[in-house]
Amino acid sequence: MKDKEIKLTELDVDKFIKEKVRGISSAVGKGCAINALSGGVDSSTVTMLGHKALGTRLKTYFINNGLMREDEPQRVVSLFKRLGVPVEIIDARRQFLGALKGVTDPEEKREAITQTFYKDVFGALVKKSGAQYLLQGTILTDVDETVAGIKRQHNVFEQLGIDPHKVFGYKILEPLVQLRKDGVRKVAHVLGLPESTYNRIPFPGPALSARVIGEATAERLDIVRRATVIVEEELAGTDAFQYMAILHQDRVTGMRDGKRDFGLQIEVRCWDSVDARVAKPTRLPYETLERLAERITGEVPGVVSVTYNITTKPPSTIEAV
Amino acid sequence: MKDKEIKLTELDVDKFIKEKVRGISSAVGKGCAINALSGGVDSSTVTMLGHKALGTRLKTYFINNGLMREDEPQRVVSLFKRLGVPVEIIDARRQFLGALKGVTDPEEKREAITQTFYKDVFGALVKKSGAQYLLQGTILTDVDETVAGIKRQHNVFEQLGIDPHKVFGYKILEPLVQLRKDGVRKVAHVLGLPESTYNRIPFPGPALSARVIGEATAERLDIVRRATVIVEEELAGTDAFQYMAILHQDRVTGMRDGKRDFGLQIEVRCWDSVDARVAKPTRLPYETLERLAERITGEVPGVVSVTYNITTKPPSTIEAV
Repeated sequence: MKDKEIKLTELDVDKFIKEKVRGISSAVGKGCAINALSGGVDSSTVTMLGHKALGTRLKTYFINNGLMREDEPQRVVSLFKRLGVPVEIIDARRQFLGALKGVTDPEEKREAITQTFYKDVFGALVKKSGAQYLLQGTILTDVDETVAGIKRQHNVFEQLGIDPHKVFGYKILEPLVQLRKDGVRKVAHVLGLPESTYNRIPFPGPALSARVIGEATAERLDIVRRATVIVEEELAGTDAFQYMAILHQDRVTGMRDGKRDFGLQIEVRCWDSVDARVAKPTRLPYETLERLAERITGEVPGVVSVTYNITTKPPSTIEAV
Repeated sequence: MKDKEIKLTELDVDKFIKEKVRGISSAVGKGCAINALSGGVDSSTVTMLGHKALGTRLKTYFINNGLMREDEPQRVVSLFKRLGVPVEIIDARRQFLGALKGVTDPEEKREAITQTFYKDVFGALVKKSGAQYLLQGTILTDVDETVAGIKRQHNVFEQLGIDPHKVFGYKILEPLVQLRKDGVRKVAHVLGLPESTYNRIPFPGPALSARVIGEATAERLDIVRRATVIVEEELAGTDAFQYMAILHQDRVTGMRDGKRDFGLQIEVRCWDSVDARVAKPTRLPYETLERLAERITGEVPGVVSVTYNITTKPPSTIEAV
C-alpha cells in the first residue's frame, strides 16, 4: 500500500522527525538495523534519522561500487565522522564491475546493480551484522516512476510486489517515502546536515553507470567521472535542480592536431525543477556552455564533442538510461 | 598537383567565370560531358559553368539516392528548368540503400556511397551518354580535409592517387577546386542562381546518410529527414553557416503519457563559420532551442530527446560522421 504524500506546505519538519525516529525505534525494537549511505541527501537524511533512533544499533556502510563520483567515499566518511556517525567503507568495486561486464541494456544494468547491491553485498553484511532491518532513502518520486513503469528505481521493492524479507532476508524501512526531494532537503537541514548535503543535487541509484550509455566498464566510468567533475565544478554556482555528464556509446568524427580523431561524445544535462516530476533545461549562459565544451574536450581523453540537452521532461526523463 | 588557392579578396568573379568556361570548352573539345547536380551551391555552380561552356553537350543528372532532403528532386529540377538547364532525375534509391545495408562504420558508409555513385550509377550513365568528362564541384576545403585525413570527401580522387579515368572510365574536371565556400557563393550569384541556392547552407556529399549514426536504413533516413525539415524551417532566419539534425544510434529513456518510452535522440548542430575550416556553435536564443526540441519530439515519431552541440571545430568537425 502506498503511503500518503506529505506536501511541502503541510510538512511540519520537527514533528516529522519526531514521528519517524519513534517509528524506527518501535519497528526495530531491541534489534539492530543497517543502512547504506551514498552521500546523497536521501541516504544522508535516513542515516541521521536512524542514528537518532538507534545510536550504535545502526550500522552504516558506504558501499564503494566503483560507480561513485571522484573522492566520494572519503568525503562522505569524513563528513559523518564530524557529525558523530561512524561509517564503514566496503570496497565492492570488483563485484559491481563484474556484474556489469557485457551488460548494455539500461534495465539490465539497473537489475545487475540491484541484485549485486541487495543480494550479494548487502546479503553478506546483513548476515555479518545480524540486522533484521534495512533503512532506505526511497522517496515518493522513486515509487511513482517505478509504479508508472517509467524507470525501475533500484530501491523500490514492495511497490513491485517483491517481499524483501523473503527475497533478501531483511525488512526494509523507508521513512522518507511520503516526501519528495524538496521535503527531504528541509528535513536534512533541520537534522544538522551541512548545506553541501541538503542542497546537493540528486544522484541516481545506479550512480555513474546510469551516466554511461552502453557497457559501463572501468575505463568508460573513469571518462564520465572526469567529465562529471568538470560539470559539477562549472555548474555548482547555478540554482539548477540537477546537472550531469553522460558518456555516449555513439562515436563521432573530430579532429586533433589537424588529423581525424574518431572520438567520444559527452552530453551535458542541467535541469530546472522543483521535485523532478517535470523539468526544463536550465538556460545556461553560452559562456558557460562553451567553457564546459572546452574543458571537457581539453581535459577528458578521447572526447571530441559535447552537447547540451534542450528537451523538457516529459518527454525526456532526467537521467538518460 | 594541388591548384593554387584563390582567396576571396583576390577573386575577380567575371574573370574567373570566363576562364573556367574557356577551360571546360577546351578540355571537352567537341566531346560531351556529364555532371551530377545535387542542388547545393557547389554542384549548381558547376552546372551553370558547364552549361555556359557546352550547352546541350552537357548532360546534367539529379541522382535520387534516397538520402536527399524532403522534396529535393522536384525542387532542383524545376529551379534549373527556369534557368533553361534541362536536368534528368535518375531514381537510384534501391542501389544506394542496398549498398548501405548493414554498414555502420562512417568511412565504410562513405565508401559504399562513393562506389555506388561513381562506379554503378555514374558508370552506367557515362556509357549511355558517351561522355568522356565528368564535371564536379569539389572545393578546396574538401581537398584539404581529405589530404589531412580528417574526412574522406566523396568527390576527391586525384588527391588520393586515384586515376578516375582508369578506375571509372572518364576524366574529372573540377573548376571550383581553387575556391572555398565563400568564393563559390559569389560565383553562383553572378551566374544568376537565386539566393536560395547561392546562400544555401552546405550539405554533405553522403547527404542524410552522414546525418545518421550507425546504419542508414530507409526508416532511419526518414526520421532524420523529418527532423531536418524542422531544423531548416526554424533556423532558416539565422545567419548561421550551416545547421543540421543528426539521428543517434544510442537510445535514451523518455516518457510519453506517463509511461516509459525508450526512444531516439536527435542532435542539432548550428555553426558560425566563414569557410568551414574553423567553426563555433551559433549562440541560438533559448526560445529557438526549446521550440526545436518541442517540435522534433512532438512531430518526429520515436524521438524523446534533443541535444544541441556546443563544441567548436576543432576538436569537433562540422558533420558528425
